[in-house]
Amino acid sequence: MKLILWRYKLGNRKDRATQCFLKMAYEVDIRSSRVNPKFLHGNSTSHTWAFSAIAELIDNAYDPDVNAAEIRIDTRVINGTVCLTFVDNGNGMTQDKLHKMLSFGYCDKKQIEGEIKPIGYYGNGFKSGSMRLGKDAIVFTKHKESMSVGLLSQTFLTNINAYTVLVPIVTWELPSNILLVLGKRKIDRTTTCNLNAILQHSIFKTEEELLDELSGFGIGHGTSIIIYNLRMTNNNLELDFASDPYDIRNPETSIIDLTSIERPTTACQHEYRRSLREYCSILYLKPRMKIVIRGKKVKTKLMSKSLSQTEKDRYKPTWLEYRIHYTFGFTSSKNPEDCGIMMYHNNRLIKAFEKVGYQKQPNGLGMGVIGVVEANFLEPIHNKQDFNMTAKYSAFITNVSKKLNDYWSEKMYGDSAQNRTSKEKKLPDWTWAQCDNCLQWRRLPAGIIAEDLPEKWYCHLNPDASFNRCDIPEEPENEDEALKKPVYKKTYKRKLKEKKQAEEYGKASS
Amino acid sequence: MKLILWRYKLGNRKDRATQCFLKMAYEVDIRSSRVNPKFLHGNSTSHTWAFSAIAELIDNAYDPDVNAAEIRIDTRVINGTVCLTFVDNGNGMTQDKLHKMLSFGYCDKKQIEGEIKPIGYYGNGFKSGSMRLGKDAIVFTKHKESMSVGLLSQTFLTNINAYTVLVPIVTWELPSNILLVLGKRKIDRTTTCNLNAILQHSIFKTEEELLDELSGFGIGHGTSIIIYNLRMTNNNLELDFASDPYDIRNPETSIIDLTSIERPTTACQHEYRRSLREYCSILYLKPRMKIVIRGKKVKTKLMSKSLSQTEKDRYKPTWLEYRIHYTFGFTSSKNPEDCGIMMYHNNRLIKAFEKVGYQKQPNGLGMGVIGVVEANFLEPIHNKQDFNMTAKYSAFITNVSKKLNDYWSEKMYGDSAQNRTSKEKKLPDWTWAQCDNCLQWRRLPAGIIAEDLPEKWYCHLNPDASFNRCDIPEEPENEDEALKKPVYKKTYKRKLKEKKQAEEYGKASS
Repeated sequence: MKLILWRYKLGNRKDRATQCFLKMAYEVDIRSSRVNPKFLHGNSTSHTWAFSAIAELIDNAYDPDVNAAEIRIDTRVINGTVCLTFVDNGNGMTQDKLHKMLSFGYCDKKQIEGEIKPIGYYGNGFKSGSMRLGKDAIVFTKHKESMSVGLLSQTFLTNINAYTVLVPIVTWELPSNILLVLGKRKIDRTTTCNLNAILQHSIFKTEEELLDELSGFGIGHGTSIIIYNLRMTNNNLELDFASDPYDIRNPETSIIDLTSIERPTTACQHEYRRSLREYCSILYLKPRMKIVIRGKKVKTKLMSKSLSQTEKDRYKPTWLEYRIHYTFGFTSSKNPEDCGIMMYHNNRLIKAFEKVGYQKQPNGLGMGVIGVVEANFLEPIHNKQDFNMTAKYSAFITNVSKKLNDYWSEKMYGDSAQNRTSKEKKLPDWTWAQCDNCLQWRRLPAGIIAEDLPEKWYCHLNPDASFNRCDIPEEPENEDEALKKPVYKKTYKRKLKEKKQAEEYGKASS
Repeated sequence: MKLILWRYKLGNRKDRATQCFLKMAYEVDIRSSRVNPKFLHGNSTSHTWAFSAIAELIDNAYDPDVNAAEIRIDTRVINGTVCLTFVDNGNGMTQDKLHKMLSFGYCDKKQIEGEIKPIGYYGNGFKSGSMRLGKDAIVFTKHKESMSVGLLSQTFLTNINAYTVLVPIVTWELPSNILLVLGKRKIDRTTTCNLNAILQHSIFKTEEELLDELSGFGIGHGTSIIIYNLRMTNNNLELDFASDPYDIRNPETSIIDLTSIERPTTACQHEYRRSLREYCSILYLKPRMKIVIRGKKVKTKLMSKSLSQTEKDRYKPTWLEYRIHYTFGFTSSKNPEDCGIMMYHNNRLIKAFEKVGYQKQPNGLGMGVIGVVEANFLEPIHNKQDFNMTAKYSAFITNVSKKLNDYWSEKMYGDSAQNRTSKEKKLPDWTWAQCDNCLQWRRLPAGIIAEDLPEKWYCHLNPDASFNRCDIPEEPENEDEALKKPVYKKTYKRKLKEKKQAEEYGKASS
């Protein structure tokens, strides 16, 4: 009773020691919020399609704390079970970090000055993503000091009728400074219990099999996520591994659109909704990590650099400290659906081909125009497939609609509209190539067409001697310069305005 | 070590006692997945607009385990803080149930034969909903045997720098069979610690204030959710309490649509996106619970019964055991946006005014047609604002598009199309009224118009003597009968087919 009174009095004191004591007391006496095994499924339903879940797992490898140069997405059959695997060559995780990955909302990702901005910040991507793709996931990770295996498995939790989400983890410590020496694990009760849970309730049946899997990292490090009991639809695997040996396809999205009386046709669907290879090629605004799907590298598309007649525009809302940059241009794609705004957030695609402004009209206005914008000031929702519908989002959409309309009008009716032939419109303003070694992008001299480049291109192939070695930094984006430069001349807009003024003047004087 | 070997051997045994023992062992030695306080925010971002979050809290009261007859949504100022409150007169919760409500994924909702189907099943509605609306929520609940207060508070967790989500709960036991006697709480260390956490870190500063709040339930029971530190946008409260004293409005959704060169106009927005009263009026297909917003009852709209020229159609996919019913009809609304499919799931609105088929064309085809369907075979996503994009969803959308097109063609070009005047089209086929006492719906004799009914309508006002008392059950829906009856005659479709056949015959014979 004395303790209670003491604590009660302490509650009013604000110094750090008191608060720390109170926190400890709270952690003893106040129950924590639990997680039901069923939550794993419920939480995963925020992903309305499988690729959205896959993107979460790619993001995790991409982020600066992992900092992988490469992620390999594959299918494998392990002990008779079809698995979807994600293997990166990043930093790997300590046991504590792995436990956080298997928990909810722990995100240690911090932006380091000069490095890439982390994409994830809700600390939910692995859980929602993996559990959307399959019932079970087992994670192998090798860090410089240890190797760990962790299990997030709905099957395991159902088998043992668990009341809360238990995540068995086993860790092997690695001896320092010696290459290729076997790790050592503790032989205490806890470790054995965790190991047994994994061996009895996963697709790996012996400790040797686990160590074998870990040996795949060789002398390097990295993380391998193996997802099994993959989601089924109508007794088939949800994802289509058969149609294309170098791709993973999503057959779910073939909606037949009956908008027309005369010709009910299959709706023009974006290829990125159906092909993982295609989706991965546009997933990052500036790709910095190799994505390899079923052994074949994804050729990334640098969207803003593949357009023709590109113009920059900008937007400075009162509530934002900096200007937002738009890039508008014409796509070379023949699919009429391939136009609209590509909205990125911290380099990651959130919404693709979002029709705005004229493009929402059925009369062909705005056709073929693509806008690219990195909208870091907006808040992506839970599944990173949309933004929170705030006043800021509304203001942004209103603005980007206006800017797209401006761009279209200028290119169609403006001063320079007549000078171009239709053929010219199809070619990108510049050809860019990414070095397969350093992953940097190089602008190629005029006359070189992207299609003519070899499958694997390296800096030394660049005819431009000022950018033909991997140690030469990438050509700067010159955003500061772009800021100073006036935006393109909106001749059509000016004429319209003049005409209106003239009319008003005419009215006034008559 | 012996214990370990024993357990290891046991692992292969499948009998219940062994499994139970193993489970206990697992719970001791295997760490559970934790929840970071930051997850509360991340998890809430699945709600892209505030009303989607509010709907979750209404659903909880509606569901059979709570079974409230009424929920009151209000704003209050408590100790100087603006709060949003949800008070229902349902069953209330035991301490254990309250702890589950403050945890993730615990959903005890089961369908009881003959009773309404539960809406919630992910066990996440309260967390994602309340934390979307404000930083903190305090729950008061009175059950027949006890009263409890629980706190889910980001402010508290930040204050104490918590590593995981702690949820302080205090319970007062109620003496049985005696009305209005004060509850008794334990005076042990744990209870005091929980109580102190609530009093020091919530807007209630004394135990008396808590008991005062609980006394609001009188001799009844129920649950009161108080949300504070409400979300702000641009230094204003996100929700608009000022414009209408009897409504809660969402000012966020006013996107100016610039789809037209000639007339950039404010897009026709559905009123339900802006007015909570309007949204609540269509939130349930068959409303069974009174919703009172700021003291004024929501007049529910029985969508499928407010249409004119209604026709039933149906759909029986091969993968479904039963038929799905469509109701099509013309709306009396003058807003051109108010058409499309209203998609419900277990009685709860998931998608509203979804344009399908002809309605996606800009030429006015399908205008004014509303379809109503309860698609229980689909899986709603995390935020209950969309369905999972599965093959089933695709097939369903394809079918409903076709059926809507059929309906439109029939009403425009079919045999009965000429016989109707435009005035007739505007009036619903039947007028229905809901009794303010028993909440049952009564079909009124022809000639009575909904607008002429009093604000509060009771069964005894029904001129139809066979349904003029609250103890008379509602007129059955007769879905079985509808099943037997052929669907409406598609004369236009038949003629088209005949014409085509004749043409082919003509070709063949020529």
